[in-house]
Amino acid sequence: MIKNKSNLEFLFYPKTIAIAGVSKDLNKFNAGLKFLQCLINFGFQGKIYPVNLGGGEVMGMKIYRSVEEIPDRVDYVISAVPAKYTPELVSDSVKKGVKAIHFFTSGFSEIENEEGKRLQSKIIEEAKKGGLRVVGPNCLGIYCPAGGLTFNADFAKVSGPVGMISQSGGNAANCVHEGNERGIFFTKVISMGNGADLNESDYLEYLAQDDETKIITGYIEGVREGQRFFSALKTATKTKPVIFFKVGRSISGAEAALSHTTALAGSNTIWDSMMRQAGAIQAESIEEMMDITLAFNKLPIPKGRRIIIVGIGGGASVILADEFSNAGLILPKLTDNLRKKLIRLYPSEAGRIFKNPVDLNNFESPDIFFETLKTLNECEEADLLAIHVGFDHLSLMPIVEKEFIIGIYLRLIRQIESKLEKSLPIILHSYSSLHTRKMAYDASSRLTAEGFAVFPSVRRAAVALGKFVNYYERRAIMDLSNIK
Amino acid sequence: MIKNKSNLEFLFYPKTIAIAGVSKDLNKFNAGLKFLQCLINFGFQGKIYPVNLGGGEVMGMKIYRSVEEIPDRVDYVISAVPAKYTPELVSDSVKKGVKAIHFFTSGFSEIENEEGKRLQSKIIEEAKKGGLRVVGPNCLGIYCPAGGLTFNADFAKVSGPVGMISQSGGNAANCVHEGNERGIFFTKVISMGNGADLNESDYLEYLAQDDETKIITGYIEGVREGQRFFSALKTATKTKPVIFFKVGRSISGAEAALSHTTALAGSNTIWDSMMRQAGAIQAESIEEMMDITLAFNKLPIPKGRRIIIVGIGGGASVILADEFSNAGLILPKLTDNLRKKLIRLYPSEAGRIFKNPVDLNNFESPDIFFETLKTLNECEEADLLAIHVGFDHLSLMPIVEKEFIIGIYLRLIRQIESKLEKSLPIILHSYSSLHTRKMAYDASSRLTAEGFAVFPSVRRAAVALGKFVNYYERRAIMDLSNIK
Repeated sequence: MIKNKSNLEFLFYPKTIAIAGVSKDLNKFNAGLKFLQCLINFGFQGKIYPVNLGGGEVMGMKIYRSVEEIPDRVDYVISAVPAKYTPELVSDSVKKGVKAIHFFTSGFSEIENEEGKRLQSKIIEEAKKGGLRVVGPNCLGIYCPAGGLTFNADFAKVSGPVGMISQSGGNAANCVHEGNERGIFFTKVISMGNGADLNESDYLEYLAQDDETKIITGYIEGVREGQRFFSALKTATKTKPVIFFKVGRSISGAEAALSHTTALAGSNTIWDSMMRQAGAIQAESIEEMMDITLAFNKLPIPKGRRIIIVGIGGGASVILADEFSNAGLILPKLTDNLRKKLIRLYPSEAGRIFKNPVDLNNFESPDIFFETLKTLNECEEADLLAIHVGFDHLSLMPIVEKEFIIGIYLRLIRQIESKLEKSLPIILHSYSSLHTRKMAYDASSRLTAEGFAVFPSVRRAAVALGKFVNYYERRAIMDLSNIK
Repeated sequence: MIKNKSNLEFLFYPKTIAIAGVSKDLNKFNAGLKFLQCLINFGFQGKIYPVNLGGGEVMGMKIYRSVEEIPDRVDYVISAVPAKYTPELVSDSVKKGVKAIHFFTSGFSEIENEEGKRLQSKIIEEAKKGGLRVVGPNCLGIYCPAGGLTFNADFAKVSGPVGMISQSGGNAANCVHEGNERGIFFTKVISMGNGADLNESDYLEYLAQDDETKIITGYIEGVREGQRFFSALKTATKTKPVIFFKVGRSISGAEAALSHTTALAGSNTIWDSMMRQAGAIQAESIEEMMDITLAFNKLPIPKGRRIIIVGIGGGASVILADEFSNAGLILPKLTDNLRKKLIRLYPSEAGRIFKNPVDLNNFESPDIFFETLKTLNECEEADLLAIHVGFDHLSLMPIVEKEFIIGIYLRLIRQIESKLEKSLPIILHSYSSLHTRKMAYDASSRLTAEGFAVFPSVRRAAVALGKFVNYYERRAIMDLSNIK
């Protein structure tokens, strides 16, 4: 199947939206009503027209009996009608000259029922003939804050550099929620469902050439047009990092993907080599995808893979060293000179480890902590400097002491960053109790608001930073070979 | 070095404890004072004698100038004095006929200073000569709720089946905190520090023969007496599951371990084959160790590795299938008959997947959910039935609906368990926001209180259950070969 490389800009910035399948009964769950409320609450600036065969009124708005009946041009239709009514909706939309329709409606090729497959073929064929592009079916659709489009009213209204393609609406929503809390904002997120017309290749081609999108992410169950996707991937990776989480890697997972969005999961070997050849980054979970995105979003390009880690906890230091080494980072030894400088800062060595990772045992005083970071920043053998704070450890202290220490710590980290040359990822880890996790989370929010890349566990930080430095190392090698 | 296999019972149930290095100044941080307050708050039933060279009084208790001066027999000493005063404390304790001393004191072989090493040799030698056994130095000591001993006042006062050896006090505390929140309780936890006298082999030998300990766990940085440890391990695994998290596996990690507790991390190959030969279980993180422990603690012995998973979310189902397959579990296909029964329960197939994992899309009604579980329970092709609830998904609903659904869900899970034959691990997952994590956590607490094994993420559940079923499969094979 050959498609024209189309500019999909019209999908993201409609001026008028019709929502088909809006119930006037506010007390019953109705997906059309949800989309209506969602767009209004999100602040969509264009016009919205509710549609329902039964007509009537909802929230002070007239409900039109069909798309055709709307006395205005319609750019975009959201369908929440049952599957059996979709052929009529499509022919109506074509007659009206609508450019794009998003089917929240499910019950097509993804169900085990010949009728579903027949229906999907029918509506896609008719839409294509009529010049109507289809998002979905069986998906949540589009989130584009600059266009006022969303499928969840509590997504951030501000735009950011991250674009996302997702073959799961739930996972797309999770990424936006987690991202927003961690200071990651999005240009466009597409929950694409069955991808019966527009598919992952279309969206990838679009995001590759979209200047507002600086980082591309994706939750991928399967790819329909392998060659086209690979070509889009190679184009995309030339100018921006592409981070994909591919599922359906096991036999059971592939079967689940087929039932979920009709995606053919395909061969792991082919996917892996495609990703490797294109220089794209593979994440092994949703969380990991967001962690890697955070590194690209917040940290300057690293000069290399050598890292110094400083914080509190002997056991934590051993785990840090293992996890960062496993992730391919190098923990250089501190020089004797540097070690002597550090030791001189502290009244006693007992309980402290002046190696890498540096275990300070306790904070001693703000001045000393400040001097410690300045000293470590001087280390020429390292490219990155990471701070870790184990909130589990802090839980052993009385409340007052704890608040005091966290306050000092956070303030110092904020103050000191401008004085350092090395980039400063922060790991605020805790798992032992809800109480300490909450403390870590609150501290994360404060540092996130200051623009830091904050990671919630040692392993997650290690894996993300490992893939982040790998990416730039590979690019440096590729650039060198291009020069030759 | 050959040691007598000693019964260490006396370590865990002292009647009188002296704490050396207790300051009378309540306003300054002092470790001796912390231990004193900690034991009192925890409700230690025996007598506690504070000791300090300066004498005086603290919290209405007389401070003795030396251990010798105490007008009572002393079973156990906790040392919080600086390292340089420890030789005197040891000779005092020996004269007094004390059986065990725990050195919280650090600044011995773990620091890079010949004086530290000399001091450690000196006190250990003198203690041995005088029949005084040493816990540590450089550690938090012992938590044994039945004996009233603890190093943290907020640890659970009830005992449970889990014993733990830890070469990190911080990590031991984290395990107890996390364990307690998840319904895991402990018989004895030993934070053993440098293990200069009693080491990991002593504690393992003890826990192996301790009837109250049904599951042995450990955070291990290195082993001092390889042969002896291997032999203790083989003895332990004969009667109980042994789950160890070994760190210091990387070069940097091994160096950190040496600086932390003087542990020689040793060869990964030797450790791995030792664990494999003994049939012990390797965890790859603290969290994983607790997850596996939870499975052993709460779930009946599984008949096999075939699992059905039911919950909500198409994307989640694909991830579940991949993660459980990767972990070695088998997701059997549902028979046509079973699938037909399920389909008949629901008004429509749209948005639902009646395969394994089963994606219910929404709850429809409590009765239908109940019938669904009963139907799946009948599946003879599966050994385990797992429920997963994605709280990220629920966050899309309005508060009232959400509370209603969670309420129904939890109540149903509680009601239905008694009606099922298959064991029922529960996965309550959420990562997208603090709000949903909190919801998942609250629901976990409620189901934990009912005795369920609740896991906080898909991957963590998959990995833990995978290792859990592997253990019993291996045992079944070993039992068979023993019969022959």
